[in-house]
Amino acid sequence: MENEHENVIVTEITPEDLLQLVRTKNRTGLIDVFEKVPTIDIAEAANDFEPSDLIAIFRLVKSEYTADFFDGLSQDTKENLIKAMTDKELVTVINSQSADDIVDAVAEMPANLASRVLKAADKDMRADINTLLNYKDGTAGALMTTEYLEFASTTTVAKTIAEIRAKGKDAETIYTIFVRNRSRQFVGTADLDDLIFAKDDETLEDIMNIDVAYCYTSTDQEEIAQMFRRYDLNAMAVLNEDRCLIGVITVDDAVDVMTEEAQEDLALATHMSPSSKSYMETTPWENAKKSFPWLIALLVLGTFTTMILNRLESQRIFASMGILIAFVPALMDTGGNAGGQTTGLMIRALALDEFGPKDTGKVLWREIRAAAIVAAIVGAFAFLWITIEQYTGIVNLGVIPAETPLDFTNTNIWNGNCWTWEFSSHALLFSSLVALTMFSAIFVSKCVGTLLPMGASAIKKDPALLSQPMLTTIMDALTLVIYFLIACAFFPAYA
Amino acid sequence: MENEHENVIVTEITPEDLLQLVRTKNRTGLIDVFEKVPTIDIAEAANDFEPSDLIAIFRLVKSEYTADFFDGLSQDTKENLIKAMTDKELVTVINSQSADDIVDAVAEMPANLASRVLKAADKDMRADINTLLNYKDGTAGALMTTEYLEFASTTTVAKTIAEIRAKGKDAETIYTIFVRNRSRQFVGTADLDDLIFAKDDETLEDIMNIDVAYCYTSTDQEEIAQMFRRYDLNAMAVLNEDRCLIGVITVDDAVDVMTEEAQEDLALATHMSPSSKSYMETTPWENAKKSFPWLIALLVLGTFTTMILNRLESQRIFASMGILIAFVPALMDTGGNAGGQTTGLMIRALALDEFGPKDTGKVLWREIRAAAIVAAIVGAFAFLWITIEQYTGIVNLGVIPAETPLDFTNTNIWNGNCWTWEFSSHALLFSSLVALTMFSAIFVSKCVGTLLPMGASAIKKDPALLSQPMLTTIMDALTLVIYFLIACAFFPAYA
Repeated sequence: MENEHENVIVTEITPEDLLQLVRTKNRTGLIDVFEKVPTIDIAEAANDFEPSDLIAIFRLVKSEYTADFFDGLSQDTKENLIKAMTDKELVTVINSQSADDIVDAVAEMPANLASRVLKAADKDMRADINTLLNYKDGTAGALMTTEYLEFASTTTVAKTIAEIRAKGKDAETIYTIFVRNRSRQFVGTADLDDLIFAKDDETLEDIMNIDVAYCYTSTDQEEIAQMFRRYDLNAMAVLNEDRCLIGVITVDDAVDVMTEEAQEDLALATHMSPSSKSYMETTPWENAKKSFPWLIALLVLGTFTTMILNRLESQRIFASMGILIAFVPALMDTGGNAGGQTTGLMIRALALDEFGPKDTGKVLWREIRAAAIVAAIVGAFAFLWITIEQYTGIVNLGVIPAETPLDFTNTNIWNGNCWTWEFSSHALLFSSLVALTMFSAIFVSKCVGTLLPMGASAIKKDPALLSQPMLTTIMDALTLVIYFLIACAFFPAYA
Repeated sequence: MENEHENVIVTEITPEDLLQLVRTKNRTGLIDVFEKVPTIDIAEAANDFEPSDLIAIFRLVKSEYTADFFDGLSQDTKENLIKAMTDKELVTVINSQSADDIVDAVAEMPANLASRVLKAADKDMRADINTLLNYKDGTAGALMTTEYLEFASTTTVAKTIAEIRAKGKDAETIYTIFVRNRSRQFVGTADLDDLIFAKDDETLEDIMNIDVAYCYTSTDQEEIAQMFRRYDLNAMAVLNEDRCLIGVITVDDAVDVMTEEAQEDLALATHMSPSSKSYMETTPWENAKKSFPWLIALLVLGTFTTMILNRLESQRIFASMGILIAFVPALMDTGGNAGGQTTGLMIRALALDEFGPKDTGKVLWREIRAAAIVAAIVGAFAFLWITIEQYTGIVNLGVIPAETPLDFTNTNIWNGNCWTWEFSSHALLFSSLVALTMFSAIFVSKCVGTLLPMGASAIKKDPALLSQPMLTTIMDALTLVIYFLIACAFFPAYA
């Protein structure tokens, strides 16, 4: 991947340069690269290497450097590497990783590779991996790490700092220290800076924060990301039912969840299944699989619209008043877009927990007022625009021959050769018809667009998954019905 | 706001309880609340208080607690509070804040309030505020804080820790220490945990990391969020042109940027202007303003479609072959949705910097293959589905009277009373017409949906802003043209 940041100069490495260092067994050069280049960038450069070249990196560079390197490789590369490594090499690599990272990789692996990894893990690591593997994907349990620092609330600051120095290297974070009471229950956290500023003989109880957010193993990851954002957390305690600490989640994992959730919302807003893989890692077939089920579902849902149009056509409405057709796409698009805006707004606000299903009444009342404003403005604009379209001949009503040229030399437009009184009264009536339909479609669509995601959220379904396709289906059909009802009222002679 | 987290128990406070503590001047009770409840939750409970009640909180509780409280209030509440405070009170509040938070508030204030705030700020704070106010919104300069810890690379670990204890309280973060060389240029960072684990007589040069990402004051905030995500940073250095450190960005600010950018992408994907305000803070009029310009723009862009349909209608194509109409919405929706999926994918991948405009060829080739798969599957499904629709009478071709009942008792469907040879050959031809149009529309739409965002990105425009509306416009018109071209080829007698 090329570096696009003109402004930003992080030392870079190309796959070619890296491969050359590996093939020439240039240990000094490689170590220099690991010191100067961010490890994730080295891993990305090495992603397409042969397993033998990757193994050479692990042999040339010590595990202090290669731990993050392994974690940065893509899932496919990791699997190929594990296949190619000797048992001894695997033991070194696996035990230099943190348990939660290994679990993420193992969860997606074929069974034979997963069991090789578990065999290579030492006893403590294997216990941690097995514990984490038992939690449902998307919960705090699956996200947490089991490597953290926990102290009794009676520990002194001096003792705590000494312990951090002794044991901290294995912990995922030492910036947040977790504190338990005599019954081993979680009671608060102490930040490393509080420890630094505290006196040596103070206890953790004296300096700890008790107004801290925490969660349980079953808490949903989206909720956890919200708490990290809201409370500016560095790490969060994960408790079991007895309120004892059994894991912690760090901010870098929460950031990954935020990215994943945002990607999911955007994918669903464009009617596509979300994916946790990066674009370049996705094969065209996987890409297609995220797309076509939605298109087929929308096609089936759209059958209502087809039916309605077909019934109207069989009543010869179009034959007598063909211009009606020309505005069907514009009306349907506007109806769908207006509701889609509102649905998008609701989905995001629900995701950020700005309100919940309980607030439906309050939110609907806000949206009704906004909808009235938008519908009035767009409706008024549509009246003007469609009058202009007819006057300039962009569309014609069909009551005069299309070939008749417009005579712009006549100053009184209302008596121009094609803009006769009969024509103009028709034209204005027609503009009113479209404008009124536009008004109604926008208003209804914004209300439906509010209620669908709120309803989905009330029955604990993902609002993003259900709302957009249902909205399109409902609004396409409703807009058509509204349009032809108004048309029949306006032009009874043609209906 | 109600707490929706069933699993999560953070101590809570209601606006009513808080107001009672304030009105009864219960200092002990208030301090207890500030110790047990996260400050942002207290600020939210107090957002609708009268200024006099808010001032009472600042008088009853010491500034150590109220600094974050002020920062957590909404912009409107902050402004009302500043209006109501005495100069002396304002001095205490303003100087307990960090400069970047004050700048965010000041940037949106009326001039008279902004100048009151600047007057209240002490000399150093005022200089910091003025510096930050000069950077363009959305750049590193506007995002950074000026309160950080910087040391010469020759400083010993012992001296650094002593200095952190002495000066660290004012810094935004002490977890990342920034290191400069003799020419005062930024050369690396040391993490607090590295300091804790290091020997007292080592220098920062010995332990610092040099493979760290940094940025310049003009770097775009989206790029900064990407680096925080990619490199799991806690804080990032912001340099001037001489490569000297002039500010730092902390992870909590980067998290806010990520949330903002994700919200922006989702808003644009649903054709709406993004907003940095929370939903409940937005008035219906502000809400409407984000919506109607888009609907009007899309309406105007949709004029092409109206024109094409009107021209086709004036050639009496619908009158002779009315069933064509019934599938126009389904075809347009599918074309638009297929391309919208791809555009959404491109926008997100471009935002996450997974590829850039230079990779257009490679990405287009991937999308062409995915498009062919999707188009073939959905096209084949459409053929089946439309044949079923016709057979079951959901739609009818119009070559037989609509009233003729279907005879399901006849076992040979191809010779049923409405499903005669002539009818069935027509029906299958018609299904082929729609399926072929569907195939072409999906294929073309996914290619256009790839090229539009890549093109926007190549000319340095926001891909999310331009691509979706242009895609809809282009695809609606193209789908119609493809449909009627194929129709004329399939049914020359009717055309």
